[in-house]
Amino acid sequence: MTRRARPADANRQRRNPDHSKRVRRGWPAVRILVVNCGSSSLKSSLYKMAGEELLASGAVERIGRPESTLHCEVADQSLSRPLDAATHAGALEALAAAMFEQVVDAGEPDVVAHRVVHGGEHFREAVRIDDAALRAIEDLAPLAPMHNPICLLGIRTAANLYPAAQQVAVFDTAFHHSLPEYAFLYALPYSYYERDGIRRYGFHGASHHYVAQRVAELLGSADGHSRIISCHLGAGCSMAAIRDGRSLDTSMGMTPLEGLVMGTRSGDLDPGVFAHLVEHLGIAASDVAVLLNHESGLLGISGMSSDVRELERAAATGHARAELALEVFAYRARKYIGAYLAVLGGADAVAFTGGAGANSAGLRRRILTGLEGLGMSLDPVANQACDGSEALVSSGDSAVSLFVIPSNEELSIAREAFGVVAGSPDRGQ
Amino acid sequence: MTRRARPADANRQRRNPDHSKRVRRGWPAVRILVVNCGSSSLKSSLYKMAGEELLASGAVERIGRPESTLHCEVADQSLSRPLDAATHAGALEALAAAMFEQVVDAGEPDVVAHRVVHGGEHFREAVRIDDAALRAIEDLAPLAPMHNPICLLGIRTAANLYPAAQQVAVFDTAFHHSLPEYAFLYALPYSYYERDGIRRYGFHGASHHYVAQRVAELLGSADGHSRIISCHLGAGCSMAAIRDGRSLDTSMGMTPLEGLVMGTRSGDLDPGVFAHLVEHLGIAASDVAVLLNHESGLLGISGMSSDVRELERAAATGHARAELALEVFAYRARKYIGAYLAVLGGADAVAFTGGAGANSAGLRRRILTGLEGLGMSLDPVANQACDGSEALVSSGDSAVSLFVIPSNEELSIAREAFGVVAGSPDRGQ
Repeated sequence: MTRRARPADANRQRRNPDHSKRVRRGWPAVRILVVNCGSSSLKSSLYKMAGEELLASGAVERIGRPESTLHCEVADQSLSRPLDAATHAGALEALAAAMFEQVVDAGEPDVVAHRVVHGGEHFREAVRIDDAALRAIEDLAPLAPMHNPICLLGIRTAANLYPAAQQVAVFDTAFHHSLPEYAFLYALPYSYYERDGIRRYGFHGASHHYVAQRVAELLGSADGHSRIISCHLGAGCSMAAIRDGRSLDTSMGMTPLEGLVMGTRSGDLDPGVFAHLVEHLGIAASDVAVLLNHESGLLGISGMSSDVRELERAAATGHARAELALEVFAYRARKYIGAYLAVLGGADAVAFTGGAGANSAGLRRRILTGLEGLGMSLDPVANQACDGSEALVSSGDSAVSLFVIPSNEELSIAREAFGVVAGSPDRGQ
Repeated sequence: MTRRARPADANRQRRNPDHSKRVRRGWPAVRILVVNCGSSSLKSSLYKMAGEELLASGAVERIGRPESTLHCEVADQSLSRPLDAATHAGALEALAAAMFEQVVDAGEPDVVAHRVVHGGEHFREAVRIDDAALRAIEDLAPLAPMHNPICLLGIRTAANLYPAAQQVAVFDTAFHHSLPEYAFLYALPYSYYERDGIRRYGFHGASHHYVAQRVAELLGSADGHSRIISCHLGAGCSMAAIRDGRSLDTSMGMTPLEGLVMGTRSGDLDPGVFAHLVEHLGIAASDVAVLLNHESGLLGISGMSSDVRELERAAATGHARAELALEVFAYRARKYIGAYLAVLGGADAVAFTGGAGANSAGLRRRILTGLEGLGMSLDPVANQACDGSEALVSSGDSAVSLFVIPSNEELSIAREAFGVVAGSPDRGQ
């Protein structure tokens, strides 16, 4: 294996062989508009499938605030402008219009693929959205009250805008439906699982799925077996233990709050601390939830920023709590790598993705420090030289391959949606 | 090393060499009464130090209930009788009287050593109890509202019963004071640590300390270095990562609720689940705390028992949820072993203690399954043959030694207290 995967090969290698077969069987070009609604932002991409050609992409940030902006890229053109986007519906309408306006040979999308955060136990794979699916997504709102209602808004807006297009839901949770019961169950009375659906679901499925496919290709093992620890480190952070393409465990839980330290989320916390905050410090449970989701994590410890780059700059100039925040972050990640080594019985590869995972050589170094005895040896030069593109960053004698894999969640979502409309037998897996 | 440490040698090997020196320097015999107050029980032992001779031991169970009982053992005599013990004070008075009544050459204790659950950041080692210490233990009550007030009751009762004796407090948390900040800090706003003392403290210190000392002796490494993962699996369960005798991490947190699955405690839980139980299922936070502490864990999953032996019997006859409870328990423990391998950069030994840890060969087998690739290979015959006494249960080719070490928390507490009154320089460590 070369130190760096060849960029010129990237698209060819990433193409799913099944898709090529479909093209050969004469599938017509399918335009898939990917819609990814966040709490105060909306991202979108337009792909031409099966060829995985990116026609346009864009985002609206700070929806509902005066400083809301629209950004859009088509071919080598880019456009940024203020936008009076009071709602996700208005934001999607404006963004889709801006994207389609500039695409040569425009038209309506054939498929709108919606990233839906929570699929619960009901959705084990991506689905065509009909009335029953819509109701089921609505019914899951209590499990993801901050996320699913916004996804539903996106689905309804797109259905109005493009009544002829197929609407497909791709779930963040679906990739983790392969977790065994002993891994997804919390040690609560069993009725809380049966009756209320309280269990580990996991998120970031599109990203972990993408990473798992790509690393398996790069490992190219003769027997097709692979044991991969995927580390998605962005504003939200999660890890997954993946054997032979199937997720066996993941650090986020019933909600995206559990697990690693994140930008503003606490990750793992003694449940006794939650009780203490309510019972002894007199904070309302709903305020504790806000505290743990929005004021904790890297921001909470450092007191200055949720951004790894800013913290690294501050730490380099002697900011003690910025340094401490990065240490706590890295230590928690290191413990999860160990835990997933135990889950997999050893690993072939550890892969870093997400904004911080792909772009911060310092963060990868911090996380992997002290793991040489477990077969993980970073090549300091390759690690430092990595510019966020795909790269092998382990040393030649490292038993475990260490990769940087820039994830492409929206391509992963477009692939899943294409699988649904094309009736691929491996969809959702 | 022999497969099984010779029982006849146990006492001699366990004796701290420092103590022998003190005896040679002419320390008079010191009678130490160890008092260990639980929420509804009280255990006590009487040791003659420095020789570590156990003169008597006993317990009162189900304090405050009609079926309360007293049990006491002195030399080869044992006594069990009903006891109308409405309070811990009454229980201690009756138990101490029963113990001293039967000890030949009776008299009052020179020292009463109290196990105190929470020492916070204030107590980094065992201390003589004076007014300031008493106030400090009172001040820590908010961190351990179910435990410290009962310990205080024991201290006050003993001070009334034996006004001439020295009262010493030995803290469950003190062994873990060596945790580095990045390991003890939760990712909350830093003020919650500074102002409110919210951090990981860890518990079961006397047990992990005992295990660490004993395993280091058994490993007998030439350079004195050791990396030990100690697994205390009883009604409460915790693990500790111990390097060169110092605790680097432990699974219990600010409270004894975090970490492993326990008899009735949930252990780790997505903090978003706590919020969900309050906000969406309408359960009061105080009731969630009761649910997580008393109705969860092995009992909650199985719906039948918190006891590993009962669950193993039921699982063997096809009780699916008893089997599931044991699987979840073992899986969580396996992940912590992996995490602590990462913390220590590898391990020399994993040791099992506590009722279930020392006595259930099946539980050890479940936990260690699949860890062969990480250098842990159980000898199935030695594991099965172990009757709860000290034993090496790994196979000859296991890179990591696997031990059963029946812990002796009360001897460990007596040693610490003796260190305090004898002015040992290594006390508290």
